Amino acid sequence: MANRRPRIAVDAMGGDFGPHVVIPGALHAAKTKKIDIVLVGDQPRIEAELNARGFKGQGVEIVHAPQMVEMEEKPSEALRKKKDSSIQVAVNLVRDKQADGVISAGNSGATLASAMFTIGRVPGVERPALATFMPTEKSHFVLIDVGANVDCKPFHLLQFGIMADVLARSMLGIANPRVALLSIGEEQGKGNLQVKEAFELMRMSSLNFMGNVEGRDLFTGDVDVVVCDGFVGNVVLKQSEGLASSLGRLLKGELRRGFFGKIGTMLALSSLKRFSRLVDYAEYGGAPFLGLEGICLVCHGASNSKAIANAVNMAARFVDGNANEHLVKDIAANINLTVARKKSRHSEPAGSIEPAGAQEAAVPDQTP
Amino acid sequence: MANRRPRIAVDAMGGDFGPHVVIPGALHAAKTKKIDIVLVGDQPRIEAELNARGFKGQGVEIVHAPQMVEMEEKPSEALRKKKDSSIQVAVNLVRDKQADGVISAGNSGATLASAMFTIGRVPGVERPALATFMPTEKSHFVLIDVGANVDCKPFHLLQFGIMADVLARSMLGIANPRVALLSIGEEQGKGNLQVKEAFELMRMSSLNFMGNVEGRDLFTGDVDVVVCDGFVGNVVLKQSEGLASSLGRLLKGELRRGFFGKIGTMLALSSLKRFSRLVDYAEYGGAPFLGLEGICLVCHGASNSKAIANAVNMAARFVDGNANEHLVKDIAANINLTVARKKSRHSEPAGSIEPAGAQEAAVPDQTP
Repeated sequence: MANRRPRIAVDAMGGDFGPHVVIPGALHAAKTKKIDIVLVGDQPRIEAELNARGFKGQGVEIVHAPQMVEMEEKPSEALRKKKDSSIQVAVNLVRDKQADGVISAGNSGATLASAMFTIGRVPGVERPALATFMPTEKSHFVLIDVGANVDCKPFHLLQFGIMADVLARSMLGIANPRVALLSIGEEQGKGNLQVKEAFELMRMSSLNFMGNVEGRDLFTGDVDVVVCDGFVGNVVLKQSEGLASSLGRLLKGELRRGFFGKIGTMLALSSLKRFSRLVDYAEYGGAPFLGLEGICLVCHGASNSKAIANAVNMAARFVDGNANEHLVKDIAANINLTVARKKSRHSEPAGSIEPAGAQEAAVPDQTP
Repeated sequence: MANRRPRIAVDAMGGDFGPHVVIPGALHAAKTKKIDIVLVGDQPRIEAELNARGFKGQGVEIVHAPQMVEMEEKPSEALRKKKDSSIQVAVNLVRDKQADGVISAGNSGATLASAMFTIGRVPGVERPALATFMPTEKSHFVLIDVGANVDCKPFHLLQFGIMADVLARSMLGIANPRVALLSIGEEQGKGNLQVKEAFELMRMSSLNFMGNVEGRDLFTGDVDVVVCDGFVGNVVLKQSEGLASSLGRLLKGELRRGFFGKIGTMLALSSLKRFSRLVDYAEYGGAPFLGLEGICLVCHGASNSKAIANAVNMAARFVDGNANEHLVKDIAANINLTVARKKSRHSEPAGSIEPAGAQEAAVPDQTP
């Protein structure tokens, strides 16, 4: 795989703006990088778009897909009823080894579901997980899982950590990523039952495990990977977006009321905008769905051409860096931890072990 | 209780600034409101503080406590070793019906633990929970639980909702609070197993249940109560603080680099400061620990006298409004939901039911 150019399937129909925005983005990536692109979607529309841009055809192929999943369509129905959608056909290319990865700015639920059921998992990975890049005061960190797995066992969290560690190496170029567990206190022993056991597993693993990180320290830039279950991660991701938006609206209200003077508020807004843009994964190209035999990137519906180009580049970099080979190796290196836990009584799902007195034990050292 | 003045025990030794700040705050509340105060702590120091202020003695009593819990002390040890600490003695007054409520700006973990093990629970309440007021674009909402219960069953979430509903009525003066469940999608059926079942319970309850709310909509002001388990709530609370602090530091950095001009940055900072102050529960006086036979308020260590006065007033208002009587009634009105669930197979702890295919079922309609 390292000997040939990465080949990325692009859902040409996806996103709020469709082929008009997706195709220029993909072409940009094809032109500036050593990447082969497969544009998947309505062939006449794709050809028209290519012709309109005077495209000559090198490094870009078209695969026809007659159907399209709407943004508001229910993913489970799309999966069942639209077997020839651009998303599904693009995902099939990865399954059939005709592409190394797939990106879509279309219906993200449908993309995840389609990838989940179509593309095989990397050997040893139990649960593919969705990662995203979040801003810090210094740079970024990888947050995993942000919504693919809402009910997790502790060893799933370990595997999420391993997957995000590989991502941070290949994407952020960090040699030895600092991996932390999201909890409600820094010391070992803080957290719910799921996190307490995951702490032990991560401590014993090959990861550069830093221990727990609290919500208030997420953005200081002291860790590179933060692990949590998909419920917590999705809340964290959306809360960041929500807080930034609400702050923006409050500032705009103050602008209207003349509270600050126009200039002060404009300046504050511009600063906030820069931060909230960092929160938006469109700026990184997309959110990688990790653990599959091939890379799948979910882009924001509002992605512009630059975001699409970034996503294609990110997928290609993941392939070029043989990230999945590292993943197989790292999962295997820690398989004793997961196998043992799957069999032990501690392998109960998150939060299920609740011995008498667990509640009592939890309170005394709580410092909210 | 409604016929006499509320009587609030105040840990006079608590907080980063001790009696010097706590006592003036308590006196202020005693003076301006119809509240009796019991100052608990080192009697000579309390008397000296009162004398220095020329205090005449009406409505204020002193109860001596020879020990004091340090801010960094381990709560479980404090509980075991310091039976005569100001926190414990103040809490004992509530247990012995010599006070209606207790507030402390001291070691919050020790305060919670002490209250938890000393004061009885309101009939029907399984798990006392810690609530806090969070800012929105319009006003505030109550977030519950923010850290007292990290592993919860669905019916615990229902009870948290009932407790916070009573709080929103008595403290925010809302006649029919809009109660929502924190989840990762608005539609019923989104969320983890814990939340999905809690949704059903809340829908069947006497609450004005609005359904799920997502992290991104927390701050818009469209709901009055948001319910989640203490792990998620603590992450949400601390993340809000962390994001506000990080934005502040980023802005200060830009000030140093002259990015905005000094005035623009100062203005942006002042706006941010106002928002992050809203996040800080010191501004509301304290975080109420609900479900006990008496009210317990945990104040921020950095509380100033105004915050202490606010906390005393909040505790008194809770007592004056007979909030716990409402609580008993509302818990009883919904007891069939909790009793049934405690006995049913669905009463397994959070996230423990994981039928084959649960993961598969979760993915298709995920839209992160």
